[in-house]
Amino acid sequence: MTGFLDVLRGAVTDVSTAPADLATAAIDRSGARPDGLPLAVVRAVDVADVQATLRLAGEHGVPVVPRGAGTGLAGGALAGRGAVVLDVSGLDRIVEIDPDDELAVVEAGVVTAELDRAAQKSGLRYAPDPASAELSTIGGNIATNAGGMRCVKYGVTREAVLGLDVVLADGRLLHTGRRTVKGVAGLDLTALFVGSEGTLGVVVGATLRLRPRPERTLTAAAAYDSVEAAAQACSELIRQRREPSLLELLDGATLAVIDRAQGSDFAARGQALVIAQADGPAADGEIAAIADVLGREATWSERGVDPESSERLLFARRMALPSIERFGRALIEDICVPRSRLAAAFRGVERIARQYDVAIYAFAHAGDGNLHPIVAYDGPELPDAVRRAGDDLFALALDLGGTVTGEHGIGLLKRDWLARETGPDVTAVYGSIKAALDPHGILNPGKGF
Amino acid sequence: MTGFLDVLRGAVTDVSTAPADLATAAIDRSGARPDGLPLAVVRAVDVADVQATLRLAGEHGVPVVPRGAGTGLAGGALAGRGAVVLDVSGLDRIVEIDPDDELAVVEAGVVTAELDRAAQKSGLRYAPDPASAELSTIGGNIATNAGGMRCVKYGVTREAVLGLDVVLADGRLLHTGRRTVKGVAGLDLTALFVGSEGTLGVVVGATLRLRPRPERTLTAAAAYDSVEAAAQACSELIRQRREPSLLELLDGATLAVIDRAQGSDFAARGQALVIAQADGPAADGEIAAIADVLGREATWSERGVDPESSERLLFARRMALPSIERFGRALIEDICVPRSRLAAAFRGVERIARQYDVAIYAFAHAGDGNLHPIVAYDGPELPDAVRRAGDDLFALALDLGGTVTGEHGIGLLKRDWLARETGPDVTAVYGSIKAALDPHGILNPGKGF
Repeated sequence: MTGFLDVLRGAVTDVSTAPADLATAAIDRSGARPDGLPLAVVRAVDVADVQATLRLAGEHGVPVVPRGAGTGLAGGALAGRGAVVLDVSGLDRIVEIDPDDELAVVEAGVVTAELDRAAQKSGLRYAPDPASAELSTIGGNIATNAGGMRCVKYGVTREAVLGLDVVLADGRLLHTGRRTVKGVAGLDLTALFVGSEGTLGVVVGATLRLRPRPERTLTAAAAYDSVEAAAQACSELIRQRREPSLLELLDGATLAVIDRAQGSDFAARGQALVIAQADGPAADGEIAAIADVLGREATWSERGVDPESSERLLFARRMALPSIERFGRALIEDICVPRSRLAAAFRGVERIARQYDVAIYAFAHAGDGNLHPIVAYDGPELPDAVRRAGDDLFALALDLGGTVTGEHGIGLLKRDWLARETGPDVTAVYGSIKAALDPHGILNPGKGF
Repeated sequence: MTGFLDVLRGAVTDVSTAPADLATAAIDRSGARPDGLPLAVVRAVDVADVQATLRLAGEHGVPVVPRGAGTGLAGGALAGRGAVVLDVSGLDRIVEIDPDDELAVVEAGVVTAELDRAAQKSGLRYAPDPASAELSTIGGNIATNAGGMRCVKYGVTREAVLGLDVVLADGRLLHTGRRTVKGVAGLDLTALFVGSEGTLGVVVGATLRLRPRPERTLTAAAAYDSVEAAAQACSELIRQRREPSLLELLDGATLAVIDRAQGSDFAARGQALVIAQADGPAADGEIAAIADVLGREATWSERGVDPESSERLLFARRMALPSIERFGRALIEDICVPRSRLAAAFRGVERIARQYDVAIYAFAHAGDGNLHPIVAYDGPELPDAVRRAGDDLFALALDLGGTVTGEHGIGLLKRDWLARETGPDVTAVYGSIKAALDPHGILNPGKGF
């Protein structure tokens, strides 16, 4: 590989083989570790660097692992022995915000929350809001089709992407999609690349739809004496045709660990907490109707009447994962079930925790049926009971007619489960599309599917 | 081909070679005609018929043209010499409406408006509303990624499709997607098949997202002394961050032909008409704000305060195409531009009409920048000036940063223009995906791309 590294150094701006750089670039936030260190890290400063890297990697048969901020939770950016990490986080320009057409043109390395702040100046916002938004990049969001708390009203990343600039495996720069909000010309390559986890091409830029920033966002919260009652209240909101802009549920274990870490007293209010928001011109009437439904079986309820009190109510949700991680390590799962099965999903999580005698904290984007059961453990290795509990969580999702990932992606960790979810025919179609776009298999091999 | 027809007759339920059936199955509503009659029409009664047809066609190298109600406007269902038409409109069961999870499971032949009416019983609706909704099928809507007037708020067909049942070229039945509203497992095959115009597989069933049916829909209309002023008013609505659920614009020529055909007096109010709606819990405030913006430069304005007066205001829009077609033939175009370029697009349409001395009636889903310029002509053949005017309309769309189809698809008629819009690299990627999924090229050859 010395020959490859020499030509690579001659062709791109910044190549590092320093052990500290390799160690950082080898991992993401999944907690998993690859089989050794990658060969090198290319820190791209422009699209030409990305093109040259892929062209040379193709010629030399070297696997390439594209990378943004490395905040992925499914191992999609893990880079093991022999791979080149292609870090595009340096492509970080917001090229254009067009307030009239409500769109942004950005490079892949732009941090998600920074785009949202830039849009705010025009009364707009970038709607997808993964929990990692202050760190993660648009390119990484696109690679995983990232979600967030606002998805229940505004959809996932795919709904915000109008077009992409993608470097293909052979180094060609492809432009997909358009600047219009509507358009059906040709195959929807944009949607095909969104969520493909770097296996079909490397996203270097995007044209993104921005949305009017709501003038008002109002909040309501309610506590219940069981997580099932809380889940039933959320399902009832959907049945009542309410349209919250946020609908989150935290179970009793999560409330207790937040209280322990933050000194709060959420657990005193009930065994589960639901937080809902409504935004836009109908926010007042909508939050009143939501609070009415949530309040029926509640042990406690509250309305956030101003931004400060709303923020206080959301504090519990934001602190959930940091609080859990303060006391140990966490296997972060991400299953999604039909919204009517939310209570059944929480019951299943409790059953699995008992069966394997492990601690599982569960919270959910309840409006989407998207649960994050967090299995706690200690020590550097994943204990066998934790791994088996994780597997049973996937089986639970499939049993309830759901999916093994609502917003984090398949990455390296869920490949076997993807095949169980989709079956062999779908897997075969993935393979044929992969072969068509990346015939030498250099793009993030072993990830996604 | 006698051998092929014999085995086909033995394998599927209903095969017709009657000349009248072939003539009906050869054409769609594009006005174009294929080079002769197809070989046969298979009227599928179940999925097994679809699978058998594709399997045998693949073995015998016979092209297959999938067909729903035949309401397409771009020639996607034209079937010429040597092809087998595969009519799936007989697969017309609504399998399930799930009010709790707000979804429907349907076969491909279900008529769009019938699904919407079935959803209404649960307080839901199927949001996409192509003008053909009373005739066209869900399968055809999916094949073209159909639009409609509600897209400005609710998106096109793709946004309503959670999963698909697709028969592949080799006869395998593939299930894509899921029943959850969120999910990122694997490549987004669902989006890849939506809008692929029967070139990658035959859609036989779908899981569709339904939406809460708004309790109230309110209407406002305004007339202007020029189509440019009307277009500016629509662009201003977007700039003001208003969110209409419908925003339509009709030019003066269209108003005049509606008056002539229907005995109405729309043209007396101005040289262009804008009709807007707002729905949902914020409808009252939203329609007031919209009416305020629309009224500023208007020569006439009106509010529809109840369903009847709203329907009266929408009457002009619904009668536009039927009125034009009453007096001759119509080349129906479908370009889409960034919303800020709407006035420039209408100026361009007027310039093209003058240049070729042809009558062009133009109306638009203005909230999406999606114009339908209708070029009128007489006689059975497309006059040269009309064809050249049509070409200039496509060039206009591309010049303004737009696309050659907002919602009708590429079909047979716009293939050259698609290549000009996307460029050779995108065309090459289409080709490689097509080859991966339909290696013998039997699925709707020559269509889409």
